[in-house]
Amino acid sequence: MAWLRSLARSSTQLRRPLPPILSISSSFSSPADPLHSPPPAFGGLAPTEPGREKPRVVVLGTGWAGCRLMKGIDTGLYDVVCISPRNHMVFTPLLASTCVGTLEFRSVAEPVGRIQPAVSRAPGSYFFLARCNSIDPEAHTVHCETVTDGNAGSDLNPWKFKVSYDKLVIASGAEASTFGIHGVREHAIFLREVYHAQEIRRKLLLNLMLSDVPGISEEEKRRLLHCVVIGGGPTGVEFSGELSDFIIKDVHDRYSHVKDYINVTLIEANEILSSFDVRLRQYATNQLTKSGVRLVRGVVKDVQPQTIILNDGTEVPYGLLVWSTGVGPSPFVNSLPFPKAPGGRIGIDEWLRVPSVQDVFAVGDCSGFLEDTGKSVLPALAQVAERQGKYLAELLNKIGKAGGGHANSATNVELGDEFVYKHLGSMATVGRYKALVDLRQNKEGKGISLAGFLSWFIWRSAYLTRVVSWRNRFYVAINWLTTLVFGRDISRI
Amino acid sequence: MAWLRSLARSSTQLRRPLPPILSISSSFSSPADPLHSPPPAFGGLAPTEPGREKPRVVVLGTGWAGCRLMKGIDTGLYDVVCISPRNHMVFTPLLASTCVGTLEFRSVAEPVGRIQPAVSRAPGSYFFLARCNSIDPEAHTVHCETVTDGNAGSDLNPWKFKVSYDKLVIASGAEASTFGIHGVREHAIFLREVYHAQEIRRKLLLNLMLSDVPGISEEEKRRLLHCVVIGGGPTGVEFSGELSDFIIKDVHDRYSHVKDYINVTLIEANEILSSFDVRLRQYATNQLTKSGVRLVRGVVKDVQPQTIILNDGTEVPYGLLVWSTGVGPSPFVNSLPFPKAPGGRIGIDEWLRVPSVQDVFAVGDCSGFLEDTGKSVLPALAQVAERQGKYLAELLNKIGKAGGGHANSATNVELGDEFVYKHLGSMATVGRYKALVDLRQNKEGKGISLAGFLSWFIWRSAYLTRVVSWRNRFYVAINWLTTLVFGRDISRI
Repeated sequence: MAWLRSLARSSTQLRRPLPPILSISSSFSSPADPLHSPPPAFGGLAPTEPGREKPRVVVLGTGWAGCRLMKGIDTGLYDVVCISPRNHMVFTPLLASTCVGTLEFRSVAEPVGRIQPAVSRAPGSYFFLARCNSIDPEAHTVHCETVTDGNAGSDLNPWKFKVSYDKLVIASGAEASTFGIHGVREHAIFLREVYHAQEIRRKLLLNLMLSDVPGISEEEKRRLLHCVVIGGGPTGVEFSGELSDFIIKDVHDRYSHVKDYINVTLIEANEILSSFDVRLRQYATNQLTKSGVRLVRGVVKDVQPQTIILNDGTEVPYGLLVWSTGVGPSPFVNSLPFPKAPGGRIGIDEWLRVPSVQDVFAVGDCSGFLEDTGKSVLPALAQVAERQGKYLAELLNKIGKAGGGHANSATNVELGDEFVYKHLGSMATVGRYKALVDLRQNKEGKGISLAGFLSWFIWRSAYLTRVVSWRNRFYVAINWLTTLVFGRDISRI
Repeated sequence: MAWLRSLARSSTQLRRPLPPILSISSSFSSPADPLHSPPPAFGGLAPTEPGREKPRVVVLGTGWAGCRLMKGIDTGLYDVVCISPRNHMVFTPLLASTCVGTLEFRSVAEPVGRIQPAVSRAPGSYFFLARCNSIDPEAHTVHCETVTDGNAGSDLNPWKFKVSYDKLVIASGAEASTFGIHGVREHAIFLREVYHAQEIRRKLLLNLMLSDVPGISEEEKRRLLHCVVIGGGPTGVEFSGELSDFIIKDVHDRYSHVKDYINVTLIEANEILSSFDVRLRQYATNQLTKSGVRLVRGVVKDVQPQTIILNDGTEVPYGLLVWSTGVGPSPFVNSLPFPKAPGGRIGIDEWLRVPSVQDVFAVGDCSGFLEDTGKSVLPALAQVAERQGKYLAELLNKIGKAGGGHANSATNVELGDEFVYKHLGSMATVGRYKALVDLRQNKEGKGISLAGFLSWFIWRSAYLTRVVSWRNRFYVAINWLTTLVFGRDISRI
């Protein structure tokens, strides 16, 4: 009964062994003898030993940039340690579709262990469910704390540990902007993580059901079913489009008693889809309006539990409030002692290095070119982050091959071409099998821009091929098929 | 801007109308003018008027019995009002498979609106997300309260309402038994609802990840990864089998660093699978032991946050604790003023009527034959509940056709054959593509009983054909296929 002794808190408390129903089969390998060592006060991964161990790349974050980097890194050259509060990457362009059940949540989430299998298997590579609190660039060490919160939290308290790095890649992303408006964090739902989409779906279905129960007033019913979206960028527009599709196709059929009470309002301070040209913007505006989405120009002043107050004093009651007004630097990025690029991002040079220190790189929404590079800060887009991750993986592989993988050893390595971003174009759906596709490098450039069903088809095909794994590609296609055939699932689970 | 005025809390607070980006298209039908009526203090559905309105069947619960009844009811004869705290039926025999990702949660949840579309569409039929608190059989009325809790809860407080019925079907099910053992509700997870399976999955993945973070002791790692299942009935055995499949196939591959620390223990006070014959029990015991599940005979005395205490004083540390020791009557059933059957269930006669009152029926786990019927109380099985639901739907249709649908009007209707239960057999998987199938009516009866791969194939095929909708049948098949090809999904979302 070694297994039970090793499980027991203290072996002295075990008065007598358990009588097993059967003796344990010898085919089951018993675990290694426990060490019974006390937990180290401050455990971690020590610096690697050049010559004996592979250099260690530590990646902070599991977004587009960090995951693309991990996918491209040569695990024959490096051990990879990924530190992130979530164990999966979110395929963000399709997240809005999951809020109403067009796609399932798991179809847009890709586990890190599938993107880079070394983190789940290789002896020196790991995934740590934790947040990085601070970086000590002199000691080449990151200080972290485990994440134990969320649904079905742990019975353990979070604990701290440190990890030494040879190369550090900061890919921790940005945070939703609230512009300091009171009540946003308390009452609005962002649309950046899978749990946000889950919360939106549960709340929408709850409001649909509650509004059909006897005893609710007409006014309250109308409020409960008023879905307000703040921010007319691609996320806000795509979510509004999905919501109106859901209302037209599913609410009319499955919540027929309350279908005349549900409304969608999109509030934007300026133009919707400002990165697209005027013809596409006009098309999007017409399509959304035809689908019943109310477009309102306004600036939010205050968010109260059931009402938004606009700058001009108008009160807008809501039952569901989704906030998607862009992103800004996170408190972690603000706390870092590195020079910043315009907008408060971590300043990087042409090779995505943090120039003031050795062996530190930053990619994705948390980073921006320093002013002295003469380059402008790139937009916070998935394609920028992905391209940077790919570039940096190749750069690190090159450095590793040249023998510069270990800490402070890459000073003489020729870095080669600097990172150059080439915009491939923008896409956004507006609901009802319609989308915008703009394949020009910028608003003034030449090239193809189109809107309509063909664009929608291009949108779906393009994203289907971009989904990371074959498993999820398969599920996205199956989800789209079943939504078409059977409609969206409305179980509130 | 009528829509906005109607949305505003008080029209006097609207200082000036919002400037829309575009005028609202006329193709969007504006909602009916709000009534601005204050919420009734105690709203509800009034009694139906014979001659002018269809009689109303009120169904409490959305389990096997209630949903099978709603599926079979003739909506040309009756309006259906379903009252339940969840808007879907759970395909319980496949729930254990969702905890480790063999199946997805939505594949085993069937929305009530798909089972009986009238509740989402027909003018006098409804689904109310609520709990029934009490029944007034004299007034033919149920007293209810809305359910607004759970993730992404409502900003509304729950409110009360009442619903008059012509026929009432109590199908509210039973509750997990804790035998009054301290700490079970606080620290163990049951396995009866989709949210239980979600909690188990999140906790299992969290523990797998936390146990790989530096700073955790060997002892704590072993505790975190000790999965303990209490109760050796079909649910406990199937869950243990799924868990060991997950460990052998997925944990070894995807959590390779901690694979030697994870263990499953199944604790049962008597025999496992006591409803099966000795040969099948022996087979199950061998299979589970081969897969590494430890079978322990023991009785739980106390459940503490990280440790279970058994009757003999043994302490068993755990990281995940699943409780599946059978069911007993719920507080709602206990509170009802009707004569009870043995075991505290609502007493029913041969036609599933609650004999002391008019127009009240009870089906499924909440009901049992009264002693004076000479019949024994049927086991709490899905197939009993389903058969009762089907029988009662036919009985109510017969009564309705004979003109006895309205309250107190069925006194002279000939009821026909009484309900007779014929057991079709039992099945249980034990993991590793093995299952037990017992097609005999009872342990002593004659017939086929078999165990092994063929049984597993029968198990899967049988359940696949039993899944309620084509949509979910399709998804269950697809989930099984992708689990085989790609393995289980390990994103913790």
